[in-house]
Amino acid sequence: MKTYAEYQQMVVAALSQQLASLGEIPQLLLDAMDYSLSAGGKRLRPVLLLSSCDALGGDVTQALPFACALEMIHTYSLIHDDLPAMDNDDLRRGRPTNHKVYGEGMAILAGDGLLSAAMELMLRSAVQQGDMRAVRAAHAIARRAGVTGMVAGQVMDVTGEGSTPTLEKVDYIHRHKTADLLTAPIEAGMLLAGADDATVAAGCEFGLYLGLAFQMVDDLLDVEGDAAILGKTPGKDAAEGKMTWVAVKGVEQTRLDAQKAVEKAISALDCIPGETNFLKTLAQSTLNRVQ
Amino acid sequence: MKTYAEYQQMVVAALSQQLASLGEIPQLLLDAMDYSLSAGGKRLRPVLLLSSCDALGGDVTQALPFACALEMIHTYSLIHDDLPAMDNDDLRRGRPTNHKVYGEGMAILAGDGLLSAAMELMLRSAVQQGDMRAVRAAHAIARRAGVTGMVAGQVMDVTGEGSTPTLEKVDYIHRHKTADLLTAPIEAGMLLAGADDATVAAGCEFGLYLGLAFQMVDDLLDVEGDAAILGKTPGKDAAEGKMTWVAVKGVEQTRLDAQKAVEKAISALDCIPGETNFLKTLAQSTLNRVQ
Repeated sequence: MKTYAEYQQMVVAALSQQLASLGEIPQLLLDAMDYSLSAGGKRLRPVLLLSSCDALGGDVTQALPFACALEMIHTYSLIHDDLPAMDNDDLRRGRPTNHKVYGEGMAILAGDGLLSAAMELMLRSAVQQGDMRAVRAAHAIARRAGVTGMVAGQVMDVTGEGSTPTLEKVDYIHRHKTADLLTAPIEAGMLLAGADDATVAAGCEFGLYLGLAFQMVDDLLDVEGDAAILGKTPGKDAAEGKMTWVAVKGVEQTRLDAQKAVEKAISALDCIPGETNFLKTLAQSTLNRVQ
Repeated sequence: MKTYAEYQQMVVAALSQQLASLGEIPQLLLDAMDYSLSAGGKRLRPVLLLSSCDALGGDVTQALPFACALEMIHTYSLIHDDLPAMDNDDLRRGRPTNHKVYGEGMAILAGDGLLSAAMELMLRSAVQQGDMRAVRAAHAIARRAGVTGMVAGQVMDVTGEGSTPTLEKVDYIHRHKTADLLTAPIEAGMLLAGADDATVAAGCEFGLYLGLAFQMVDDLLDVEGDAAILGKTPGKDAAEGKMTWVAVKGVEQTRLDAQKAVEKAISALDCIPGETNFLKTLAQSTLNRVQ
């Protein structure tokens, strides 16, 4: 097993390279995709994929295109989410959002391009590996990013805005918009390592509770966070009547619920045969994150 | 082999069913995707996929998720293309465009959803079939729809608007925005049928010239077409300084070039061992289409 920073470094080094390896991409499209892809961030999803695969003895190098694909999917969702017709955000990670730099049309295409590139990278890798494990991993990612996963969560988030937040609605949005894309790397990483069904199921349970905790802390940060560290303006969710855990449960209960979710995530790790300390530490650190 | 209408009927019957088979999709998202997916049209891409697979003795039923996926990709590209930030079209096939009915945010998500659903359907089918031929077919479709294919063509089309059309630019746009998505079904259909490399290469050549001819006729229809039959207003391309073959070569030469392209498409069929009459007739009919 490597450290978080080492997995992160692997991803950062591979991202632009993987994109460029697809062939001749129009320069402006490549620039627009790269702008958001190289904007930094924790690279949590690809790190989760590499570490889950590694924890079960899988080949981390073979998993790299899948890790990059997941970061591309995450990035496309942010670009489209920031558009004027959606959240209408001007800043992301302290920099102007994609459409502010490249215009709305190009931002839509950069998002479409990143999602397409993600699928292409995974499928190319599956063809090259000639291994159904890679196909199952790609399918898990496509499913959790798709119309019953992340896109479904995004739709409920957009259509829910302004209406009264309820626990049922907020839970649905957190499960799909956030947790599905944090479960995808664990499911895919374990499938790539050839894990059995019970192990993958336990990994998915870990991912679900990690995702819920992660989003609860996100909602807390929007209330209590530091603008300079966040790279965005806190208080925006509440002002826009967003579906947040805090809006339904309040600050104190959200903090407790996040803690409980992390405990559930960690106890799911008991059923996983392998080196799970990395995932355990990562889940615990979720509660202390500041951005 | 079946008739065009029979393949078309297979696709129409399967489209909504395939989408619904993915699981619980939020109703509004399903409605928005279905609205554009069920808007009719020739279903040319899925018909090409089924007939190419059938012509080489492949299993048409196994190919159906791939055919539907291709129609979903085509539909997503139309929804995003019609957005105010892109072509800003109010009408498509005689009906209000997706964003006119569901709003811009939902139209962006319906497009994202259709692209995601297409990938998920192909990957699920590949997992179920457990056959690398399905993985290669899905890869071919993802590649031709992606950042070196259709999305690349779309980017050049959007950024080229207003600048002087040149043969080089128009050729690039036609090859990628149009021909890649007409070659994809032939390449994928043949890969699903287990065709050898030489046959697939000949199929791709057929697809390229069919696609070029198809787009040249499209450009002619924008000049000479009947608004009622087209379901959109002719003359829009010229008015907006669009990159069309007619803008570079004029009407008469475009007609001749389209004819030549169809001849090249048909002669590529000589290298394909199988029942190629269907594809031949289809290529010839491209020259006489009115919508």
